[in-house]
Amino acid sequence: MAKFRTIWETADQYVEVIDQRKLPHEFVTVKLMTYKDAEVAIKDMTVRGAPLIGATAAYGIYLAVREMIEKGLNQSFVDQAFDDLRASRPTAVNLFWALEKMKNALSQPEDDVVNQSLDAARAIVEEDVETCRMIGVHGLPIIEEISKRKQGEVVSILTHCNAGMLGCIEWGTITSPIYQAVEKGIKVHVWVDETRPRNQGSNLTCYELTKHGVNHTLIVDNAGGHLMQHGFVDMVIVGTDRTTRNGDVANKIGTYLKALAANDNNIPFYVALPSTTLDMSIRDGLKEIPIEERSQDEVKYMIGKSVATGQIDSVLICPETTSASNYGFDVTPAKYVTKLITERGICDASEEGLVGLFPEYK
Amino acid sequence: MAKFRTIWETADQYVEVIDQRKLPHEFVTVKLMTYKDAEVAIKDMTVRGAPLIGATAAYGIYLAVREMIEKGLNQSFVDQAFDDLRASRPTAVNLFWALEKMKNALSQPEDDVVNQSLDAARAIVEEDVETCRMIGVHGLPIIEEISKRKQGEVVSILTHCNAGMLGCIEWGTITSPIYQAVEKGIKVHVWVDETRPRNQGSNLTCYELTKHGVNHTLIVDNAGGHLMQHGFVDMVIVGTDRTTRNGDVANKIGTYLKALAANDNNIPFYVALPSTTLDMSIRDGLKEIPIEERSQDEVKYMIGKSVATGQIDSVLICPETTSASNYGFDVTPAKYVTKLITERGICDASEEGLVGLFPEYK
Repeated sequence: MAKFRTIWETADQYVEVIDQRKLPHEFVTVKLMTYKDAEVAIKDMTVRGAPLIGATAAYGIYLAVREMIEKGLNQSFVDQAFDDLRASRPTAVNLFWALEKMKNALSQPEDDVVNQSLDAARAIVEEDVETCRMIGVHGLPIIEEISKRKQGEVVSILTHCNAGMLGCIEWGTITSPIYQAVEKGIKVHVWVDETRPRNQGSNLTCYELTKHGVNHTLIVDNAGGHLMQHGFVDMVIVGTDRTTRNGDVANKIGTYLKALAANDNNIPFYVALPSTTLDMSIRDGLKEIPIEERSQDEVKYMIGKSVATGQIDSVLICPETTSASNYGFDVTPAKYVTKLITERGICDASEEGLVGLFPEYK
Repeated sequence: MAKFRTIWETADQYVEVIDQRKLPHEFVTVKLMTYKDAEVAIKDMTVRGAPLIGATAAYGIYLAVREMIEKGLNQSFVDQAFDDLRASRPTAVNLFWALEKMKNALSQPEDDVVNQSLDAARAIVEEDVETCRMIGVHGLPIIEEISKRKQGEVVSILTHCNAGMLGCIEWGTITSPIYQAVEKGIKVHVWVDETRPRNQGSNLTCYELTKHGVNHTLIVDNAGGHLMQHGFVDMVIVGTDRTTRNGDVANKIGTYLKALAANDNNIPFYVALPSTTLDMSIRDGLKEIPIEERSQDEVKYMIGKSVATGQIDSVLICPETTSASNYGFDVTPAKYVTKLITERGICDASEEGLVGLFPEYK
């Protein structure tokens, strides 16, 4: 299976990322040579996905330190970089976490502070890779068991949005068990929800499954219920942006509808998450998680590659005067989540389950 | 409230329809002067929606009779028109029903067969208008009651696809209670599901609500569950393509997901239908209703008005090599349907309920 990463070092030890805004139509990479480049890449969504944003910010600090040394600037330049990067995306928990890690790593400056910061950024990247790999290690047996039960027939997995490697560094969260199953020779097929309004499913999940040679079929967000009613789905697996102490899960808008359909048809509904998405300070996801409202233009317009011009274009899909509403996420109550799959193992979507795996939150 | 119809007679007694493929971006009408014009309008989806297809076919027979008389052709010309129109859309039950009515009306030719056929076509049109009006008469009290309970606050109604006047002649099915409520001065707001893949919600429902001055907000199909969880929806109302003896309802793909969410949040879920969609010969919708699979390009491409060119264009929203699946409908089991709203009144979604209103099916 082809392997690639979403962020990597160039021969001259700068950093390169994929311009994800152009996927799946164009594969364009962007070289980040200063922390400002990293800031812009985060701000304008060249990179997206919590772990990748964190990694880009961490490398951004390395680039700031390098520039400070190369240009003989003083520490205030790096301090500014911390401030600017922290402000680059307001709600990204991983961003703050990664910057905190960089700050701690640099609190005792060594002689070679450039390499010290590079090592710290690399550690953040490798930690994400390992976390995602372990989610796959723990999730793989679920797929294996279904495959055995079906006597080797194709295991059909439905997913929503992109909780794949494109939002992480490698492996991804929900894709990690899938990639590991495919590597083991298990027959897998993925139903990919297009995930309106931003189409992370059709743009990103389809792209990375294609790149990894994984069988998949694009569906509209409306289709999953019908597929489940007719036995075409063996399991559902989605990511999460925030998971409460009770096991409620905030994820891309529409996730809740798929959880209801899975429940109605006795299909297991899994949520794969790195423990960095746990928010053990809140319990009731519906009451306590504020849901971001985004621009109505994401609903009124659709981005893609124009048939007429071959260029990336937007098309208006409603009357100009119509208003649209655009909530970014919804909350799936824990009772509809079969199991949580974390880097430490699998548990019930409950306080007992989570504290069992993460006793530090007792 | 502005009133308009989807099909009408011109001053010279030809027929005119709206080219619905261009809505909501362009309002273009097409004059039908021969039965072949009517056939093409049905075939290429200039007109869509079961009742409107039936009315167009009925007028098509009138145009054939007129042409026969004007050109001195013989009866075989009209027979050919029946055959051609019957074949213009293979699965439209209303089409066959309307042609059967025209055949019966013309079985005893009068002296003025042109006016005889025109009267018959008009009767079909007026019957649909009256059926839709009566669905509104019976559905209106539901909205009135919610309005009273909310002490005159806005009644929020969620709908999926277009079961509006654009698919009928006037009033529409689900829009009839809404338009009648608005006429009565009841404050109403409609959440319109965009209804991927063909976007009948964003293209057509938003268009006709705009034309009638009804408050509405476009949402992605993913959003309804979240809105219901947070008390932003007072009732759901959808149409149906086929309703079984047990009250199972086949409607546009995605309807079932909204029914599940309504059920999970104790929100009433209504289905408005003309009795012509009843199929009392089958019971179990999930097992007995075959679900049409349509072109994958409807999923892979999205149609709208290009921002770059101002023209109607398609954009590709996934990798070129990705395959898509495109089931047109899903089945909502009767247990999730609060009530059926028909032209004869409201009933439970059950055999008892249906036979109570339609004893001819006992």
